[in-house]
Amino acid sequence: MKIVSRHFEEYEIGETRTTLGRTITEADVVLHAGQTGDFYPHHIDAEWVKTQPFGRRIAHGTLILSVGVGMTAGDINPLAFSYGYDRIRFVRPVHIGDTITVTATIAAKRDDPKRPAQGFVDEEVAVTNQHGDVVLVLTHVYSIERAEVADVADS
Amino acid sequence: MKIVSRHFEEYEIGETRTTLGRTITEADVVLHAGQTGDFYPHHIDAEWVKTQPFGRRIAHGTLILSVGVGMTAGDINPLAFSYGYDRIRFVRPVHIGDTITVTATIAAKRDDPKRPAQGFVDEEVAVTNQHGDVVLVLTHVYSIERAEVADVADS
Amino acid sequence: MKIVSRHFEEYEIGETRTTLGRTITEADVVLHAGQTGDFYPHHIDAEWVKTQPFGRRIAHGTLILSVGVGMTAGDINPLAFSYGYDRIRFVRPVHIGDTITVTATIAAKRDDPKRPAQGFVDEEVAVTNQHGDVVLVLTHVYSIERAEVADVADS
Amino acid sequence: MKIVSRHFEEYEIGETRTTLGRTITEADVVLHAGQTGDFYPHHIDAEWVKTQPFGRRIAHGTLILSVGVGMTAGDINPLAFSYGYDRIRFVRPVHIGDTITVTATIAAKRDDPKRPAQGFVDEEVAVTNQHGDVVLVLTHVYSIERAEVADVADS
Amino acid sequence: MKIVSRHFEEYEIGETRTTLGRTITEADVVLHAGQTGDFYPHHIDAEWVKTQPFGRRIAHGTLILSVGVGMTAGDINPLAFSYGYDRIRFVRPVHIGDTITVTATIAAKRDDPKRPAQGFVDEEVAVTNQHGDVVLVLTHVYSIERAEVADVADS
Amino acid sequence: MKIVSRHFEEYEIGETRTTLGRTITEADVVLHAGQTGDFYPHHIDAEWVKTQPFGRRIAHGTLILSVGVGMTAGDINPLAFSYGYDRIRFVRPVHIGDTITVTATIAAKRDDPKRPAQGFVDEEVAVTNQHGDVVLVLTHVYSIERAEVADVADS
Repeated sequence: MKIVSRHFEEYEIGETRTTLGRTITEADVVLHAGQTGDFYPHHIDAEWVKTQPFGRRIAHGTLILSVGVGMTAGDINPLAFSYGYDRIRFVRPVHIGDTITVTATIAAKRDDPKRPAQGFVDEEVAVTNQHGDVVLVLTHVYSIERAEVADVADS
Repeated sequence: MKIVSRHFEEYEIGETRTTLGRTITEADVVLHAGQTGDFYPHHIDAEWVKTQPFGRRIAHGTLILSVGVGMTAGDINPLAFSYGYDRIRFVRPVHIGDTITVTATIAAKRDDPKRPAQGFVDEEVAVTNQHGDVVLVLTHVYSIERAEVADVADS
Repeated sequence: MKIVSRHFEEYEIGETRTTLGRTITEADVVLHAGQTGDFYPHHIDAEWVKTQPFGRRIAHGTLILSVGVGMTAGDINPLAFSYGYDRIRFVRPVHIGDTITVTATIAAKRDDPKRPAQGFVDEEVAVTNQHGDVVLVLTHVYSIERAEVADVADS
Repeated sequence: MKIVSRHFEEYEIGETRTTLGRTITEADVVLHAGQTGDFYPHHIDAEWVKTQPFGRRIAHGTLILSVGVGMTAGDINPLAFSYGYDRIRFVRPVHIGDTITVTATIAAKRDDPKRPAQGFVDEEVAVTNQHGDVVLVLTHVYSIERAEVADVADS
Repeated sequence: MKIVSRHFEEYEIGETRTTLGRTITEADVVLHAGQTGDFYPHHIDAEWVKTQPFGRRIAHGTLILSVGVGMTAGDINPLAFSYGYDRIRFVRPVHIGDTITVTATIAAKRDDPKRPAQGFVDEEVAVTNQHGDVVLVLTHVYSIERAEVADVADS
Repeated sequence: MKIVSRHFEEYEIGETRTTLGRTITEADVVLHAGQTGDFYPHHIDAEWVKTQPFGRRIAHGTLILSVGVGMTAGDINPLAFSYGYDRIRFVRPVHIGDTITVTATIAAKRDDPKRPAQGFVDEEVAVTNQHGDVVLVLTHVYSIERAEVADVADS
């Protein structure tokens, strides 16, 4: 983890990076239930889930989201901050023992109509399991300082 | 936590619920760093943050998101599942020792063009700190079974 | 979790409630050993237990007690507080992977000879495993405000 | 932690032992809420408690019970097992930052009418805070093998 | 855990003690990754390790070191403090599910040339798995008060 | 975290790297006590430590060692493995709230007399607190594949 300054202008659409893998364990699910207070039986009742179509315990959506985003936290850009996420979709369940990897791709760059000194960079994040199936997608929106202030119209 | 079946038709726009409070502790931040692998100094370096405009350690965005959504996990509706989240915005930082409450309001109901037996319900989730300031907003999208199949056009 | 005020007089003997299930995981046992400092080999030595009559690791009694009571923590009654527990019995061992559910029944109501404005409510708590066998019983004693002060003799 | 065999006959009424101290931290409370699912605001809402008579967050009763009993887990007696607890009373609240010590005293020895080869030993456990105030008491009931089978009448 | 004062002179070369066993669980590895921030795939990617010669996830060296040393923390000697460790060697990998025991032997006693009132005691620590194979060795160096100040030459 | 292959020959004496900072929290100490089973009052009794010369709770040596080494776990070199540590010294106590950074410097390269295809690289690791004082030093010994097999004499 290093500090690497990088302006809005330096991000290029299509840039992509892929993480190493991480197995989602029973301990991860137990800790996440404990952190969030979400003890829904989908996550923590190994007997009840056998009676359900999905058959096995499912990791919390917020666990996969948190770990998936965390896995993309590489070098620190002091010119950027995390503005939010758009369109998070839980595409497939993640079960205990599944191993996820994350791919993050710069998908769009946009003016910030309220802050001409910054711009928005959209990073498409896809979390994939060990079978190559996408399990979660989201767009991570960063607000990043520009090297030169843009001429943007405040909407 | 009870199981309460409720069809799409039974959700009414404007329904709202507010949780009790929860203080975000240093232990929560440490556990979340450990769960996600995000050890950015913004969250875990009490010295460096003194040199920054925000002055104090900031809880991870995914921590507030996970806890905030978890706090809304009340009765279980077996006819509903969590489809995703839209437009998550980190409005203000949450510092160690802040206490959050969550308000969730049914904001919209929409057809699911691909699944006439279900509909989408949008719940606006707002996380507020002890000063009454909103710190995080998101739209929680549920897919919920209808009592009667809708006549929807697949788009 | 909601706040629901309820006086001593409103509790009825025979009222019962049953929780959903929760699987006791290896992670739960590891965390409980770490919280309590009880590293007895009964709980954490998978080799030694093979030489013992019980054959497999056993969850700590205090883990099942804590989780079992926690699972009954539903709505909050601000007129009640937890006075203590009577006659906790570890009826059968709980092994890693067992799934417990809890039944709580109002079994008795008694005057509090020292506090005429309150009364005692005894709730019988039974923790059951996935085979329907009771593994732990206890009586949870609540002290609850009365709507009307009782005429009790201080013993 | 050693294995030290000791028969029922070898326990003497009045034997006492006192542990070292342990501070109950915010992290302990957060972990216990996460383990038990008990997120009552008494334990985790630092703002709301200011409006209450007790003024500060209170450790869960089951936390003090679990830690207190755990602190008495010294040498292992393979001839004894934990049969249950009697008369647990939460005498005073324990707040974050309080430091507890535990005193355990052999208070009674009794026949087990159903198992002539064992006897019951009652150990009185008292948990005390840094001010010397008792915060929790309980009777830990052990079932312990006798060196010689007793002549007991099954009741 | 008791406090037992013991001077440098009272330690004898060849004294040895052996702990009970402890199984290294997946939860231990997850918690250690979270505590240290070491998310190397050797420890947490159950798929990738299948492609490697070692075949299964390996516990962090610092986990085995920390747990192994912790298992030797018996009675407290207020006259001793932990000065450091010499020659730690990771002899064999420890996999999830392995059970370790620890043997600690007083191997040497040495003057401390800078502190005539203390002496060094070297304890050889060997961590062994359930097959009897040594997995980690280290020398734990204690600095311990002497009953009588030594006549040492400061080097 | 990336995979970057690097042979023994490519390491240069004097290469150095410094990490960002991390604050050692009360939660870290509580979790480490729980992981290791070391509940010595030096670490967890906030009252007793006031009576001691060091005055405040001290982080476990193995915690600082584990976190310190973990903070140096950057890119993965598949040609290297961690062979052990030499001469770990606990130079100064680390208290709760202290913030550590780590400097790691390649200090020596040595033949491995038993494995001509590898060589040893010694990395001097120094952990420093927020006052610039060194709190822990150790030598991390790596065994690293050579690009060309060395002509070494087996000693």
